[in-house]
Amino acid sequence: MTSPGAEIVPHDGTGRVELSFTVEDSGGAPPNQRSVRVPPGVTVFDSASWNGIAIDSTCGGHGTCHKCKVRVDTSTPISRHDVRTFTRDQIDAGWRLACLVQATRDLKVTVPPLTTRPKAATVGVGRQVILRPAVQKRYVELEEPNLADQRTDIDRLLGAIDDLAPRPDLHALRRLPHVVRAADWKVTAVIVDEVLVDVEPGDTTEQRYAIAFDLGTTTVVATLLDVALGTPVGVASMLNKQQPYGGDVITRISATMMDPATLPRLQQAAAATLSELAQQVCREGGVDPAHVYEVAIAGNATMTALVLGIDPEPLGVAPFVMSTAQPPTVLATDLGLDLHPRARAVFFPALGAYVGGDIVAGMLATGMDRDKRTRLFIDVGTNCELVVSDGDRILSTAAPAGPAFEGGAIKCGMRAADGAIEVIKLDTTPDAPDRAVQLGVIGDVEPKGLCGSGLVDAVAELVRVGLLDSSGRFIPDEQAPEVAPALADRLTRIGEERVFVLHRPHPDAPADECVVLSQRDVRELQFAKAAISTGWTLLLEELELEHRDVQQVLMAGSFGSYISPASAVRIGLVPKLPVLRIVSAGNVAGEGAKMALLSVRERAGAAALLQEVTYVELSDRPDFNDRFVDQLSF
Amino acid sequence: MTSPGAEIVPHDGTGRVELSFTVEDSGGAPPNQRSVRVPPGVTVFDSASWNGIAIDSTCGGHGTCHKCKVRVDTSTPISRHDVRTFTRDQIDAGWRLACLVQATRDLKVTVPPLTTRPKAATVGVGRQVILRPAVQKRYVELEEPNLADQRTDIDRLLGAIDDLAPRPDLHALRRLPHVVRAADWKVTAVIVDEVLVDVEPGDTTEQRYAIAFDLGTTTVVATLLDVALGTPVGVASMLNKQQPYGGDVITRISATMMDPATLPRLQQAAAATLSELAQQVCREGGVDPAHVYEVAIAGNATMTALVLGIDPEPLGVAPFVMSTAQPPTVLATDLGLDLHPRARAVFFPALGAYVGGDIVAGMLATGMDRDKRTRLFIDVGTNCELVVSDGDRILSTAAPAGPAFEGGAIKCGMRAADGAIEVIKLDTTPDAPDRAVQLGVIGDVEPKGLCGSGLVDAVAELVRVGLLDSSGRFIPDEQAPEVAPALADRLTRIGEERVFVLHRPHPDAPADECVVLSQRDVRELQFAKAAISTGWTLLLEELELEHRDVQQVLMAGSFGSYISPASAVRIGLVPKLPVLRIVSAGNVAGEGAKMALLSVRERAGAAALLQEVTYVELSDRPDFNDRFVDQLSF
Repeated sequence: MTSPGAEIVPHDGTGRVELSFTVEDSGGAPPNQRSVRVPPGVTVFDSASWNGIAIDSTCGGHGTCHKCKVRVDTSTPISRHDVRTFTRDQIDAGWRLACLVQATRDLKVTVPPLTTRPKAATVGVGRQVILRPAVQKRYVELEEPNLADQRTDIDRLLGAIDDLAPRPDLHALRRLPHVVRAADWKVTAVIVDEVLVDVEPGDTTEQRYAIAFDLGTTTVVATLLDVALGTPVGVASMLNKQQPYGGDVITRISATMMDPATLPRLQQAAAATLSELAQQVCREGGVDPAHVYEVAIAGNATMTALVLGIDPEPLGVAPFVMSTAQPPTVLATDLGLDLHPRARAVFFPALGAYVGGDIVAGMLATGMDRDKRTRLFIDVGTNCELVVSDGDRILSTAAPAGPAFEGGAIKCGMRAADGAIEVIKLDTTPDAPDRAVQLGVIGDVEPKGLCGSGLVDAVAELVRVGLLDSSGRFIPDEQAPEVAPALADRLTRIGEERVFVLHRPHPDAPADECVVLSQRDVRELQFAKAAISTGWTLLLEELELEHRDVQQVLMAGSFGSYISPASAVRIGLVPKLPVLRIVSAGNVAGEGAKMALLSVRERAGAAALLQEVTYVELSDRPDFNDRFVDQLSF
Repeated sequence: MTSPGAEIVPHDGTGRVELSFTVEDSGGAPPNQRSVRVPPGVTVFDSASWNGIAIDSTCGGHGTCHKCKVRVDTSTPISRHDVRTFTRDQIDAGWRLACLVQATRDLKVTVPPLTTRPKAATVGVGRQVILRPAVQKRYVELEEPNLADQRTDIDRLLGAIDDLAPRPDLHALRRLPHVVRAADWKVTAVIVDEVLVDVEPGDTTEQRYAIAFDLGTTTVVATLLDVALGTPVGVASMLNKQQPYGGDVITRISATMMDPATLPRLQQAAAATLSELAQQVCREGGVDPAHVYEVAIAGNATMTALVLGIDPEPLGVAPFVMSTAQPPTVLATDLGLDLHPRARAVFFPALGAYVGGDIVAGMLATGMDRDKRTRLFIDVGTNCELVVSDGDRILSTAAPAGPAFEGGAIKCGMRAADGAIEVIKLDTTPDAPDRAVQLGVIGDVEPKGLCGSGLVDAVAELVRVGLLDSSGRFIPDEQAPEVAPALADRLTRIGEERVFVLHRPHPDAPADECVVLSQRDVRELQFAKAAISTGWTLLLEELELEHRDVQQVLMAGSFGSYISPASAVRIGLVPKLPVLRIVSAGNVAGEGAKMALLSVRERAGAAALLQEVTYVELSDRPDFNDRFVDQLSF
């Protein structure tokens, strides 16, 4: 949502668009309403998918299955696939294929009820996944035993299942004798990853659910999936309950080092977060938690260690060593989750202490190991993870960006919450002083501070209009009226420090009551972006590539997705490339977790990344500091 | 121990001998004294082994390794291996090889301290097992990580272990970061069956223990094994705490059917039994329970189901169906055992509802699948299990013998406890009236009743002297003085029923105050032995074998081992064969459990028996009743 006075902007890689979904129900219930905000250029299909709204599809968003039919404004451009798929009347009524509609402005979208029971689902960034979940069910009708056929209950059950040979666990064996007899030998076998975990009376094959968790340091997102259909049925997010122990991983690790009682507390806080979200998505989806048989968790190395109760101390001090790169599969109940008692919890492997399972999940979601293009993946945050692939080799590293992007160490910094300025455009045209500063504010309320994407926008725009020079210094006061007459009066001081006023609560407000960008803020961002651009510069050099060879930059993470591509290019956070090559990839960690739940093949692919990706440690490179200084200017 | 008035008998297959072991300590502690009672003919080595007394050996009791040196009475026969092993002076001092000394009479045995750290152990019935326990430890000294070597803790640990590639579990991963750093990177990896379950500071490779349980319906036996050496370090037994719920499996199954609260109670009773025994053997062996990493449990199908909390009802009613033939490996803690928190509990597979894991363990201990001889294995009890092998095919079945052998339904029947008559010899020589009835009584006390082996002896001796005819009827009173003058006055009546007085507490005691064998007792035994002999007769026919083809009969179980071979032949419990072919095999279930702990290969062999053995159901054979009647006579 943009603040009053802002105008709808064309797709130049900045700003945000809002999609209002009306999801129709096949059972005749009233349609469900949902609004989502995404960076411009994302397809309607991906926007829906990332936000847990199911749209029919089997082709993976390539416009070939012609199934992802939605109704949008009639003025929406018509693709050649639309012409083949719909009648003239349907096109006139606004029918389009969702995978081919780019959201370049606010849009209303009507999603018809699901009609297909697909064998594949589209998740991640345009990734099509053939459904082969680890959670399987088989309904069987067994012959009763007699003296001539004394096969054991388990042999009788498994003998009736042709395509799977699971190993029964004790829970299933305990339930088996009673359930088969009470259910008149008509039962459903529940299999998770080659283990028979339960036998349920009657036919329960349609109740097959799993939960994908993006376990972030700040925010945790849960998506409840119907793994039989490949569709999401509930999404919820909340702040990680570990927040009181520190905003970033280093603070939380330090807390465990200070007091040994903190590790179990952090573990419980993570468990409580996952548990509350699990309950919430089950409620939302109308699903019995006992029918959730698996969860996948994508988190960084510290979050993963903490939720498993593994001491994170060695992650926090040089030489930054993990206990394990591949956490074992455990029972969800061991993590405090009240789902099926034998539900499994699977984790993503990590490439290093600061390139964790969330990044591996993101690489899975973006197909970093499959795409033949040269691509750069950037997950921006306090710690920034970088992956470069030339279609053959894949390198990754971590860059310590500091807290600037999350609002830390920034004068008016705040998290991306209501009141945060997230989009900024400056207009130096002297004849439109009311449009000189256009702000996009989260929650459409009075601006209270500046979040990371707003910070990037602010600096990028000030550099563009010339109020910041390329070294990151505000230009002298006397030059400002000449360079940007409509903005010059906003360049002022708080004490000794120079600041630029972004928002004045009332016309007479002194600078220290305003939302401002300070000279020190610019320095913070400069250091952060230099750390990041040094990282990818060195990775590109390692692959003997030039900046211009990069065919796609994926800005990932709940954070990176919201930085304007244009601003990112302008400040040098990403290589100087056409804006269209910079793609907001959304919550790729969560998408990767969904893929792992929908397909054991994709899960194996994630595990294989451990071998396929080379982790490059930058902190011990002798030339790192020189390169870093080179990257400081805008 | 024989009662006063009894004489030492030569080895004719009857009676019992007592071995008094003096076990010397290598550390200079006072020697340990132990007395054990075994059927005559068992070797000193086996007698020691079955009772948890370790004697050096690597060859498996074949007289080739010349290591099992002990000191016995100087009159003990000298084997040609003794001559090769010992000097003249040593032989004169009583040194012999324990595997070649048959215990044909009471014997004192001095066992020197263990000198070897063997690669093999002799367990079971002369089975040599190459040590390859599932529990493995590896001591490693690791290089500290640095920025150029950021391998994860687990990769560093596993990289230092050449010969194993275990999968770490969460417990080990939780301990790993702290333990390696606190122990200055010198640690011991603990591996159980390809899972890394722990990492311990320093070198703990010598603390490697496991417990073998023979989980009997009546008695439970635990043997604590040092799996690094293959030697027992503690043995204990107690009554199964499930006893109050019924003496046999059917009563206990019925109890669970009557009241659903009974199953958890029976499970807890089994757990309490195992737990108490585990504590006892650890105390005895001076072993920290946290150094016990595995247990093996050999029990019948009902005992196994109950300890696992699996509803046994389908085992108790036709068509007698098990939940599973191969119980899964679980954590010992799931069974209520307080050992290492990740200690495993492994179970033996079962061939049928009434040929359970105890019999499979027994087949392993006796090498039923490896020996090329034609052998008959009989485990006598309320339920009697039979196995026949012709060296190629192996058949097994169960015969419902009823409670006679366990003292049930017998007028003066009792369990094999203090005061039970277990050996009986009758002497009809008129000139020695004080030797007319010679009794072996457990505990060397006043006889109180008759246990199973005494019952078999009593009937066998009465048939031999002619007081019972071959139809099992006492001969008419008037014929008795002629047939057995010294015994005739013992043939009398209680009410209408004819009885034979075995023991009179005082000369004037009326018959109903005496220990007697009644006509009905004889009938009970007759039915029991007919059920059993019908069983093996049909199995032999199935293999087209005659009785005389059987080269060895193994009498197994805590029970069967104590029946006199001569008496067993006489009443027809076993085929009519020379007594030397009838072998008391001891507690073979417990021996099998030990083998499974000492060798994963042997364990795999036990699992393979499931495929190698054909289970024959007798209860639905149309000719069973005819054959049964044929077998009733003595």
